Amino acid sequence: MKYFEDMSVGETRTLGPRTIELASMLAFAGEFDRQPFHIDEAAAKESIHQGLIASGIHTLALTTSLIVDQYLGGTAMVAGLGIDQLRFLRPVRPGDCLSVDVQVDSATLHPRRDRMGIVRLAVTTKNQNGQAVMSCAVDYGFARHPQEPEGSDA
Amino acid sequence: MKYFEDMSVGETRTLGPRTIELASMLAFAGEFDRQPFHIDEAAAKESIHQGLIASGIHTLALTTSLIVDQYLGGTAMVAGLGIDQLRFLRPVRPGDCLSVDVQVDSATLHPRRDRMGIVRLAVTTKNQNGQAVMSCAVDYGFARHPQEPEGSDA
Repeated sequence: MKYFEDMSVGETRTLGPRTIELASMLAFAGEFDRQPFHIDEAAAKESIHQGLIASGIHTLALTTSLIVDQYLGGTAMVAGLGIDQLRFLRPVRPGDCLSVDVQVDSATLHPRRDRMGIVRLAVTTKNQNGQAVMSCAVDYGFARHPQEPEGSDA
Repeated sequence: MKYFEDMSVGETRTLGPRTIELASMLAFAGEFDRQPFHIDEAAAKESIHQGLIASGIHTLALTTSLIVDQYLGGTAMVAGLGIDQLRFLRPVRPGDCLSVDVQVDSATLHPRRDRMGIVRLAVTTKNQNGQAVMSCAVDYGFARHPQEPEGSDA
């Protein structure tokens, strides 16, 4: 089991790939992001996007699934805390094949929870041409190693 | 049609409510966020969450659906640009009934795109007890009014 103390700042990994299919794009947007350029091919062609694009939240969800399935397994991650600087950089199109670069950006003790540390991951999602389509910084709470001494508990 | 110039900084709205059902929680997490405390009732009880909680990305997706369905309709919103300071503040449980407070936090001309402005929404998602479960700042690109003069185009 990888605890907070076992996460190495600077460590990098590439996750994926995962193809985003038209049907799943339309299903996700139909449930959560019913904008014409996400759900209506004709309207999307007339939009500034010049064709259907994935909901950014769908791209974030697929990115999350790769992180959970291929990176956080076997770790003592206990909670997602938040996301900063989430940017949708380029359109994601039907059939695009996404991969995710993850780097441990920082590891800091939690300011209030004695047995938790915060691991910040710098995340970049790329398409099959190596172009960044989304980036963000994700904070995960990790359990501290059971043998680490107690700090001050606020 | 509400263009960039028609969005009033400080304007507030409350959207919803929307109930998050156990079945949809499990379906979303099963596809995008397969952590034991999101998909396995027994494991969730043993976790620090003491029971199943919704994926934060699911809460964000439901929040997005309320914004798109109840707030952005009839506006000249053309693209989601990004999200900042996304925080998962309290667990969301099966059957929780969510509402969303939206405030126009700022409206600024786009630094590079002449015909676009950026509208930043301060978003707080609350449960049926009025407790904030998630907050974030979302930037949307809005088309400028067709009659507004052209600015300098970088």
